[in-house]
Amino acid sequence: MIIILRPEATEQEIERVEGLARELGLKVHRAQGLGRTTLSLGGSEKDLRAASFEGLPGVKEVRRVTPPYPLAQRRSPGTMVVRIGEVALGGGGVTLIAGPCSVEGREPMISIAESVASHGATMLRGGAFKPRTSPYAFQGLGLEGLKILAAAREKTGLPFVTEVVDTESVSLVEEWADVIQVGARNMQNFSLLQRVGKSSRPALLKRGPSATLDDLLLSAEYILSGGNENVILCERGVRTFADHARNTLDLSILPALRERTHLPVVVDPSHATGRRDFVIPMALAAVAAGADGLMVEVHTDPERALSDGAQSLYPEQFAHLSEETQKLAAALRYDAVSKL
Amino acid sequence: MIIILRPEATEQEIERVEGLARELGLKVHRAQGLGRTTLSLGGSEKDLRAASFEGLPGVKEVRRVTPPYPLAQRRSPGTMVVRIGEVALGGGGVTLIAGPCSVEGREPMISIAESVASHGATMLRGGAFKPRTSPYAFQGLGLEGLKILAAAREKTGLPFVTEVVDTESVSLVEEWADVIQVGARNMQNFSLLQRVGKSSRPALLKRGPSATLDDLLLSAEYILSGGNENVILCERGVRTFADHARNTLDLSILPALRERTHLPVVVDPSHATGRRDFVIPMALAAVAAGADGLMVEVHTDPERALSDGAQSLYPEQFAHLSEETQKLAAALRYDAVSKL
Amino acid sequence: MIIILRPEATEQEIERVEGLARELGLKVHRAQGLGRTTLSLGGSEKDLRAASFEGLPGVKEVRRVTPPYPLAQRRSPGTMVVRIGEVALGGGGVTLIAGPCSVEGREPMISIAESVASHGATMLRGGAFKPRTSPYAFQGLGLEGLKILAAAREKTGLPFVTEVVDTESVSLVEEWADVIQVGARNMQNFSLLQRVGKSSRPALLKRGPSATLDDLLLSAEYILSGGNENVILCERGVRTFADHARNTLDLSILPALRERTHLPVVVDPSHATGRRDFVIPMALAAVAAGADGLMVEVHTDPERALSDGAQSLYPEQFAHLSEETQKLAAALRYDAVSKL
Amino acid sequence: MIIILRPEATEQEIERVEGLARELGLKVHRAQGLGRTTLSLGGSEKDLRAASFEGLPGVKEVRRVTPPYPLAQRRSPGTMVVRIGEVALGGGGVTLIAGPCSVEGREPMISIAESVASHGATMLRGGAFKPRTSPYAFQGLGLEGLKILAAAREKTGLPFVTEVVDTESVSLVEEWADVIQVGARNMQNFSLLQRVGKSSRPALLKRGPSATLDDLLLSAEYILSGGNENVILCERGVRTFADHARNTLDLSILPALRERTHLPVVVDPSHATGRRDFVIPMALAAVAAGADGLMVEVHTDPERALSDGAQSLYPEQFAHLSEETQKLAAALRYDAVSKL
Repeated sequence: MIIILRPEATEQEIERVEGLARELGLKVHRAQGLGRTTLSLGGSEKDLRAASFEGLPGVKEVRRVTPPYPLAQRRSPGTMVVRIGEVALGGGGVTLIAGPCSVEGREPMISIAESVASHGATMLRGGAFKPRTSPYAFQGLGLEGLKILAAAREKTGLPFVTEVVDTESVSLVEEWADVIQVGARNMQNFSLLQRVGKSSRPALLKRGPSATLDDLLLSAEYILSGGNENVILCERGVRTFADHARNTLDLSILPALRERTHLPVVVDPSHATGRRDFVIPMALAAVAAGADGLMVEVHTDPERALSDGAQSLYPEQFAHLSEETQKLAAALRYDAVSKL
Repeated sequence: MIIILRPEATEQEIERVEGLARELGLKVHRAQGLGRTTLSLGGSEKDLRAASFEGLPGVKEVRRVTPPYPLAQRRSPGTMVVRIGEVALGGGGVTLIAGPCSVEGREPMISIAESVASHGATMLRGGAFKPRTSPYAFQGLGLEGLKILAAAREKTGLPFVTEVVDTESVSLVEEWADVIQVGARNMQNFSLLQRVGKSSRPALLKRGPSATLDDLLLSAEYILSGGNENVILCERGVRTFADHARNTLDLSILPALRERTHLPVVVDPSHATGRRDFVIPMALAAVAAGADGLMVEVHTDPERALSDGAQSLYPEQFAHLSEETQKLAAALRYDAVSKL
Repeated sequence: MIIILRPEATEQEIERVEGLARELGLKVHRAQGLGRTTLSLGGSEKDLRAASFEGLPGVKEVRRVTPPYPLAQRRSPGTMVVRIGEVALGGGGVTLIAGPCSVEGREPMISIAESVASHGATMLRGGAFKPRTSPYAFQGLGLEGLKILAAAREKTGLPFVTEVVDTESVSLVEEWADVIQVGARNMQNFSLLQRVGKSSRPALLKRGPSATLDDLLLSAEYILSGGNENVILCERGVRTFADHARNTLDLSILPALRERTHLPVVVDPSHATGRRDFVIPMALAAVAAGADGLMVEVHTDPERALSDGAQSLYPEQFAHLSEETQKLAAALRYDAVSKL
Repeated sequence: MIIILRPEATEQEIERVEGLARELGLKVHRAQGLGRTTLSLGGSEKDLRAASFEGLPGVKEVRRVTPPYPLAQRRSPGTMVVRIGEVALGGGGVTLIAGPCSVEGREPMISIAESVASHGATMLRGGAFKPRTSPYAFQGLGLEGLKILAAAREKTGLPFVTEVVDTESVSLVEEWADVIQVGARNMQNFSLLQRVGKSSRPALLKRGPSATLDDLLLSAEYILSGGNENVILCERGVRTFADHARNTLDLSILPALRERTHLPVVVDPSHATGRRDFVIPMALAAVAAGADGLMVEVHTDPERALSDGAQSLYPEQFAHLSEETQKLAAALRYDAVSKL
């Protein structure tokens, strides 16, 4: 931590800051030059409390030096590979995760699963527990949904990811699913993150609609610090004033995350845009920007979907996306291009 | 629900939309005039699925007619009064809720409680379970914190509000506290909202950092639809590009909520600004805009606070705020001015 | 300027940074301690180019020490008073600036002016040159509008403020008006700011819809550095995701500006909210937060207004606002409370 | 325009709305059904004033039916081609526009121009008039800069685009340059747009930092309605809470614009991100999303650049970007994929 003092700070004010630092168990080093004073504070970063110094008389700014997420922080080049059955997410290709927003029944789920499997998907998605903005909206089939997803896995050989909504649902989901999804609205549900941190299943953590990069990595840190090393991050759009899409897909977080963390990153263009006809261009953009995977909604009968039908691709659109993704990845050898 | 069709929509497209509506069990009425077609759809609003129609060929826009939160929606003039012991929040005055961010120990808590009680606070606040952005930050004293808050209540006679972070903590909090707080980061933790909906304690629901007015009222609807009628809303700032304060306090939501709902609204200027010297002006602004209460952080030794010290008022500042609030309320007879 | 180097920065990297600084004519002082290195750079701040150092190998952060707006920056306590005829804006009271969005004709303008004058307004507003989002919207009466405003001034004795849209219109406006308004959309029209900086008329500078505090003060600096010392700042809402009002009124910029600058600040609740029924609560909130003035739209026949009718107060509403403002100001002696 | 009335609107209220519409010269058609009333209003859309009806008693919502930008609106499939010398922007390939942020002198400009020309750029960029946030920053070489750009054009054969900052500079720029750029901060400088509308040079219009899609197209409409048909739109990032890049590049506006307008769209990843190492991934993402061109900053000595050095690519990086862009475009035959 470095404290930049105001030019007009008095010696008394500086000593008060130094005193407080020592009281908190920190080493202090004062540097002066060209009429300015800065203090360097040392000690175990997790014990540092920057807020204690902000607002003290004479203090201009308090700057952290080490990032507050030691486990999520990149320590060596390359992306961590998360293995899910035969899938190696982060290993250089583009993992295609596809399926309906909600699991609505056995027949539709299996039909969709077989369709996306035949078109290049390597993992399934589908909600059994649905966090819905309205209490009157379809809330998912729960355990029954998990069983249907397991049946679809059996049929296709593809592992599946599904969302948890509370600590209770984690126990069910980790028993049935291959990857545990923490949704955007729960990105800072810290009890849930702690529970997921104790699971042996990989976690897919979606960025909250107003989360900064640091917020996202701190939430990942919650899971990592519980002992679960396999965290996949997911960009799914943030909330802004722009009204031409449901959210604003923020692809520049991809190179920014690449710089800061070794965790793999997938992009969800379906929730990001909320519009079927925007999904393919945004999915391809995500791949070009270096995404390790795509998570897209596909439905064989989107008009009758119980949730988010307007953003689900038709199967033939998914087939097209899958082909284009492969061409694009081949052309760019993007792993060499956009990654460290 | 009203569907506005594109001018160029074909008869076939219109009939497809009508057919889907009937299939979903809705009554349809087609209106034409001046070369435009609109469809009115009737039926139980909770069964309506606007998304089914969005994106269909020929459809320009789908507009809901009734708000999606029948219980949170205002049905008569005036603000609902939530009674918490002797406090009548929403009844015309300004309820002052004050205390530390976190409960840090018995002595400091009681000292702060006595201080704020003597200066006009009518309810206490203090965190026992703390949702912290970093897993390494102080997470609260838990049950021990609740007991300390109860001791402070005993000493001062003031009821207290404290935050819950998961369904487990609700059981403890409802046993000890007077009001259950759902924090901003958990505003869309729907499992938590459902649990709070089953409690007999009033709930204080904070607006999420990127929640629209509808999002907030839909989250209130989760609690109300569980049977808990006593919901207090809380504005605490939203996330924007502006960087002079931690969040952007959005006071215009006060008249907007007044129009839409009967639920009382309090404002938290401490979390909204993150800076002690901004708290008083923003608190007074909130009162002038018609807030039913203020929730402010006060600490007798903010520099040594374990969380959010930089935004906590010194006791003498709280005393000043309390006086100014009374003068302002008296001058404006604000209940007559800013409320329906 | 202080440069914080990365912990792993090599001596070679540090020397490169120091070399570049010296090459740019800056003095350099290196400080080391607890394993970290910082560089202090001195020299005329306007010559410093922080961007030259950002992104250099080994550089973690570049922090400015002095604000980049030496003239807009507060140098002593208190608010600067801008004198406009008999009006002393910033001198402790609340200046009420009222009138229609656009000047639409002689009769309506004079009727509105007389109405607001009789209810406590001390300055008139009205657009003669209108920056409209659509090229097909009413663009204002131009010179004719200025003459009508001058006639209204004659009738009521109140000075008036009106907007400029380009350097040409400044010459006309400075001839006829008392205060030159730079609108939100032109806040970073730097040619226009430079021209206004050469005028002898005070300027009212509106914050742009996505301007930070620094952006606003840098735009003020453009006017100040041209020699025009009389700059009034105006908060009128910023653009966010929130959809219950046209813009999000950001009142926390008031204490933030109070801390940084001596320039007086007025608030425009009409453009901020876009809704008549939100104007009074937000106006009172602005006064409670310490605004030096209010700028509100009033129209005697808002339904037939050529622009922004939906946000214009009826005359009796303005009368009510005026009374409440006086009570509130008297009660709070807000000059003592919310200002330095 | 369609007006949706509140369910509880009285006959008197409805008649008042109808009366106002007729008074404004509009045809009115009332439609009733399922207990709801809507009014369709017909007439020349540019005369319609939706705001006149908003906020009237009984009115729930006012919806425009035709977009307010008849000239910018798409009327047939395909993208309009803007011809600039031998460049056909919008014609299916990806136009690469490259050069320094500011023109700093003859030698550097020509050196950069030759470098980018040899690596696939087909148009040059460089600022002679610079709109700078600070009055103390380098403001450009003015006419001298235009002459240097012309010399670079002479050397390389590449046309150039450069920014205008006021109506005066348009006259100089249209004399010397091939394309007139309106910068983001001037996107709603309507006097400037009107002047550019009278020019015979194509215009490149940058999206403002808080402009919606409609705002952008309305600004384009200003230019188009003046008679200048050749408008190129440019996405360069918007302002949000996200802090990992200077702005948030909003690529989802590409398919949204494709749907609404025939005007070609280029993307500026340099200003959008402000960071050199983010430029290439974002540029490739833009191409994958269907951009008609890229506008990137390149500098042979970015550390000594007088503006925005931290975001300028090194020449070898530009060469790499150029190659990757070609591969990507070839792989995707993106014109078939992402465009109508």
